[in-house]
Amino acid sequence: MPHPRLADVKAFTFDVFGTCVDWRTSVKTALGAFIQDESTQTKFADQWRQGYIETMGRLAKTLTPDDTYPALDTIHREILDRLVVEYNLTLTSSEAEQLNLVWHRLAPWPDTPAGLARLNQHALTATLSNGSVRLLADLKRFGQLPFDVILSAELFHAYKPSPRIYQGAAKMLELKPEEVCMVAAHGRDLEAAKAVGFKTAYVHRPGEGHSSPEAVGNESYVDVSVDSIEALARLLDP
Amino acid sequence: MPHPRLADVKAFTFDVFGTCVDWRTSVKTALGAFIQDESTQTKFADQWRQGYIETMGRLAKTLTPDDTYPALDTIHREILDRLVVEYNLTLTSSEAEQLNLVWHRLAPWPDTPAGLARLNQHALTATLSNGSVRLLADLKRFGQLPFDVILSAELFHAYKPSPRIYQGAAKMLELKPEEVCMVAAHGRDLEAAKAVGFKTAYVHRPGEGHSSPEAVGNESYVDVSVDSIEALARLLDP
Repeated sequence: MPHPRLADVKAFTFDVFGTCVDWRTSVKTALGAFIQDESTQTKFADQWRQGYIETMGRLAKTLTPDDTYPALDTIHREILDRLVVEYNLTLTSSEAEQLNLVWHRLAPWPDTPAGLARLNQHALTATLSNGSVRLLADLKRFGQLPFDVILSAELFHAYKPSPRIYQGAAKMLELKPEEVCMVAAHGRDLEAAKAVGFKTAYVHRPGEGHSSPEAVGNESYVDVSVDSIEALARLLDP
Repeated sequence: MPHPRLADVKAFTFDVFGTCVDWRTSVKTALGAFIQDESTQTKFADQWRQGYIETMGRLAKTLTPDDTYPALDTIHREILDRLVVEYNLTLTSSEAEQLNLVWHRLAPWPDTPAGLARLNQHALTATLSNGSVRLLADLKRFGQLPFDVILSAELFHAYKPSPRIYQGAAKMLELKPEEVCMVAAHGRDLEAAKAVGFKTAYVHRPGEGHSSPEAVGNESYVDVSVDSIEALARLLDP
């Protein structure tokens, strides 16, 4: 029997970075050509990601529905150029350009493609990420992720965790909020989704989130807590 | 070698109704429970589709970016209710509701799923239809159509053949218009896409379009003319 909290769910919306793809390992691998030491690779990758999150956070405060969605490649490149100086690396402009595109070629967590395919048997699946439509489409193609629909902050002129993102997604899927389940490795995303009435599924991913898996899994805004997308799909089995 | 006119194409955007799915046959089959005569089924199906196109045409003239995207199920249902009276049919409310949902369950033309899968090896594929995101997602799921991205008039608050649709699609895919190829069985769609700089592929589908295949295929706004999506995919082969 399907998990009682998920019985009425008709669509699953997914956070992508960290939840569906293992961005840290892919970025570290790409950095390997310029940085030998693994802990330095990790630190650089984390700072790159953190810089992006901070930039998006600043933009989120000022963005209006009339504004143009920011060019994510440009944001990633500006942070990269700063870090290259900070870490005293030597990259040609063409090497930096190539390295910057690693964000379009992030390997999925091993269970993601099969987990999504299995989930597709039960419900509609969509991305719901602050990444742009094109960036998400590239990740979908690169990782062979069988999402039905690409939903992005770009469509709603807001950023997670703004309620407009979740409300906009439910409306576009022509579903009530309680018929949609947000899937994420980050508590803040789930908390915001729950606040507008979504169901929520926490997926534990190594190195993601700010709490221990138990701490997030036990929060009142978490309906189900799993350690893979395949495990989530199994909760839907008849 | 790829067809020279398609050599720089990085994404294909598809008209869906008539081009990817054989709506007429699916609707006629659904009507079979209430209408015996096949030519009457055809006439009813054509009037239903035509009624929808006319309603959308009226809406397109008044729709502004702030307006809510219209509920397509409601539009289809109003036309259906009118036709039920005109054809003197007897349907319960529940039968009419079920019949109305046929627009979410339209069988693809036989070559569409494999043609799209093959095209996906070469380029990004997206719907570009006046249908809503949810309607297109349902058709994608029902017909197992491996589109990368669902693009809909709903995202751009305009309707084909408005230039805003094609320009919006290219921008969202982060491509120049000449890197996108519109694929359609209808000349008007291709003419509008070409006017903003798209490449264009005419796919001949029995019963679609207002001209003979040759007449449309030879128009100056048509870059390539094929009789299936598989044939289009073959034009990309190395």
